[in-house]
Amino acid sequence: MSKPKILIQIDPDAHCSVFDAVVAVDSGVDHLLQYANVQPDQVRDLVHGAMFTRGPDDLHQTAVFVGGTDVAAGERLLDRVKESFFGRMRVSVLLDASGANTTAAAAVLAARRHVPLANASALVLAATGPVGQRAVRLLAREGADVRVASRNLARAELVCQRVAERVEEACLHPVEAGDENSIRQALQGVSIVIAAGAAGIELMPGELVEQANSLRVAIDLNAVPPLGIGGVRAGDSGRLHSNVYCYGAIGVGGTKMQIHKAAIAQLFARNDQVLDAEEIYAIGRNLQLE
Amino acid sequence: MSKPKILIQIDPDAHCSVFDAVVAVDSGVDHLLQYANVQPDQVRDLVHGAMFTRGPDDLHQTAVFVGGTDVAAGERLLDRVKESFFGRMRVSVLLDASGANTTAAAAVLAARRHVPLANASALVLAATGPVGQRAVRLLAREGADVRVASRNLARAELVCQRVAERVEEACLHPVEAGDENSIRQALQGVSIVIAAGAAGIELMPGELVEQANSLRVAIDLNAVPPLGIGGVRAGDSGRLHSNVYCYGAIGVGGTKMQIHKAAIAQLFARNDQVLDAEEIYAIGRNLQLE
Amino acid sequence: MSKPKILIQIDPDAHCSVFDAVVAVDSGVDHLLQYANVQPDQVRDLVHGAMFTRGPDDLHQTAVFVGGTDVAAGERLLDRVKESFFGRMRVSVLLDASGANTTAAAAVLAARRHVPLANASALVLAATGPVGQRAVRLLAREGADVRVASRNLARAELVCQRVAERVEEACLHPVEAGDENSIRQALQGVSIVIAAGAAGIELMPGELVEQANSLRVAIDLNAVPPLGIGGVRAGDSGRLHSNVYCYGAIGVGGTKMQIHKAAIAQLFARNDQVLDAEEIYAIGRNLQLE
Repeated sequence: MSKPKILIQIDPDAHCSVFDAVVAVDSGVDHLLQYANVQPDQVRDLVHGAMFTRGPDDLHQTAVFVGGTDVAAGERLLDRVKESFFGRMRVSVLLDASGANTTAAAAVLAARRHVPLANASALVLAATGPVGQRAVRLLAREGADVRVASRNLARAELVCQRVAERVEEACLHPVEAGDENSIRQALQGVSIVIAAGAAGIELMPGELVEQANSLRVAIDLNAVPPLGIGGVRAGDSGRLHSNVYCYGAIGVGGTKMQIHKAAIAQLFARNDQVLDAEEIYAIGRNLQLE
Repeated sequence: MSKPKILIQIDPDAHCSVFDAVVAVDSGVDHLLQYANVQPDQVRDLVHGAMFTRGPDDLHQTAVFVGGTDVAAGERLLDRVKESFFGRMRVSVLLDASGANTTAAAAVLAARRHVPLANASALVLAATGPVGQRAVRLLAREGADVRVASRNLARAELVCQRVAERVEEACLHPVEAGDENSIRQALQGVSIVIAAGAAGIELMPGELVEQANSLRVAIDLNAVPPLGIGGVRAGDSGRLHSNVYCYGAIGVGGTKMQIHKAAIAQLFARNDQVLDAEEIYAIGRNLQLE
Repeated sequence: MSKPKILIQIDPDAHCSVFDAVVAVDSGVDHLLQYANVQPDQVRDLVHGAMFTRGPDDLHQTAVFVGGTDVAAGERLLDRVKESFFGRMRVSVLLDASGANTTAAAAVLAARRHVPLANASALVLAATGPVGQRAVRLLAREGADVRVASRNLARAELVCQRVAERVEEACLHPVEAGDENSIRQALQGVSIVIAAGAAGIELMPGELVEQANSLRVAIDLNAVPPLGIGGVRAGDSGRLHSNVYCYGAIGVGGTKMQIHKAAIAQLFARNDQVLDAEEIYAIGRNLQLE
């Protein structure tokens, strides 16, 4: 009989995310061990405790989840988790701080339902945030031509540079998009727009959606009104509006949750996985094939 | 198959109450998530994590328990829990900080075994503390005429005022009861006395129990000697002494524990319950009907 | 049906040991309640919560584990746990801070496979540390003649005195062993050597193992190179080298893990056990008889 599934929830915040905890339980975890307020230099001892208890045949039944609200902090913890491993002595780990990986994966998969991504022209608004950066990465890897928009061109360029380091074949264009005019220009020829901005800020007025002839899919990941794209509703999940398939944060949420659960279940398949944006996206793509 | 039962234990203390945790397990909770050192402004994110993970059909399988030793702090957390809900998006919540609700319920139910509460005359000593205030509320709601005693009349008046705001039909009398004489006077015509004072302080000497002709039930909720009412023993559970049915803290404890467990089980019946003093008392009353 | 097994993990460190948590799950614990950052004066309330929830018939299904990296801190917590009990109102408790008890037990049991301990001459290097002190205690109780070595004679004497207070029949000799010569001398006539030093420090060069004619067993509990005894390898588990049976930290680890799991399982057999070095050693000895 196989050992119980243990998930070690590592969170830099003062309290571990309840959201992540409930999803872990609903993904079949038997024992959830919650560690809040985790600093990078505390990670090694926690991970060694996971590595040195169960034998090689059972090591895949222990895994680590890195969460919390601060994606950069989560990334630092993930780096420390990976540095703690010795060769084959390791456990699988999933990063989904702030839900950034599962959200970006769900958004790109929504776009993919309507437009073949290879060579598609996509615009990511507020692309310098954690979800935006991941959406850029995933679109670039699928072969899309991606316009990386920010109010600040230098920050957009930095994101392009970082993504290019990870995705060799990436086709990326930094875009300064601070006002309606610049966004109208950035939309020319674009078939997919993803708005990954902060809650309650409209990045793109509704008339731009109506005027953009090439646009097929508009995805807005902000759940708090006013939404990031005018005319899109939070609950939209492929609603056709002005000839554009619209998705809102809640509409994308169902797929996001499915991916999150599948990713946690996947952790326990082997002990050598690091599930970050690309791996989580691949899990989501497999779900849609089923 | 229904989802596992998840209870989120929210506690303002440095460590979550072990007592509450063990009772939760023994009430059938599948996964207990413990959150200690919770400040009011941290509640919303915790509760949203509970609300936004499971769908409407499963939301009743997630619930919140507010505990800890400081009842006022628990009440502030409960307020924040309730403020976090959006319409039907909510989870059930139980407040039992310091066991005050279950203790007060068990005490009033003990009295009710011997005296019909409607129109009964009851005296609550140390009525300004958290257990005392709740006993006053429950007695008043049952139609008893309640003398609300404190060493400080102004504080007794304040409790009367607060309870009257909640219980429209309440019949309350503030009483200054600082010494033997004032308590003897307050006891005149009273059939029920409940002592809800601090540990190790005798509020009412034993001869008063013997002299009080109208008295039928004496309930003392202090478990540490000297007890609050002379002649009552901690383990008393309806022992007849000087023609008075006596209950001590441990004697009331069995009913208290039954109510606590039933209240936690009840949390998972629906997703829209707020279990505070009155609701917990009702649960206890139903248990006694069975 | 018996109640679920609840283990309360009490740890003085900022985070509860993951190692101890995973072993607890693998020992059949149903609900693990983790309490980190526990100060001595917080112990009583935690333990009372464990004592006052379940009735006498079920109290053995709740137990306490005291862990963490600091053995002295763990001992202080264990003392407070024991002080919290009232007569028969108690729960079983296991101390294994830093794995010191299970490691010392496994080391002495390894020696016992090859040499009858009664009247054997044993040398414990770095005997003043928590594992060393426990190895001395266990060897002395089995009737061995123990040389208690430290770089500092006064500290060696102090350990002898402390162990003599616990083990009446103990035959102990303090030894100052700071350099090769003093260790060579201390080894004369010795059949068992246990090195319980800090990670990465060689206490005894390999040629001493080769030269020590009476030596039958060399046990090194340091897992980080350079090991404490030259010629011993971390994975050694009874390897014969220069006519000496060698054990390294990892080689001893299998037995240590078996003992750790058996000790946790044993906690739930009765509610009145305090499992410290001697009791844990007895559990290990029983395992080897099976």
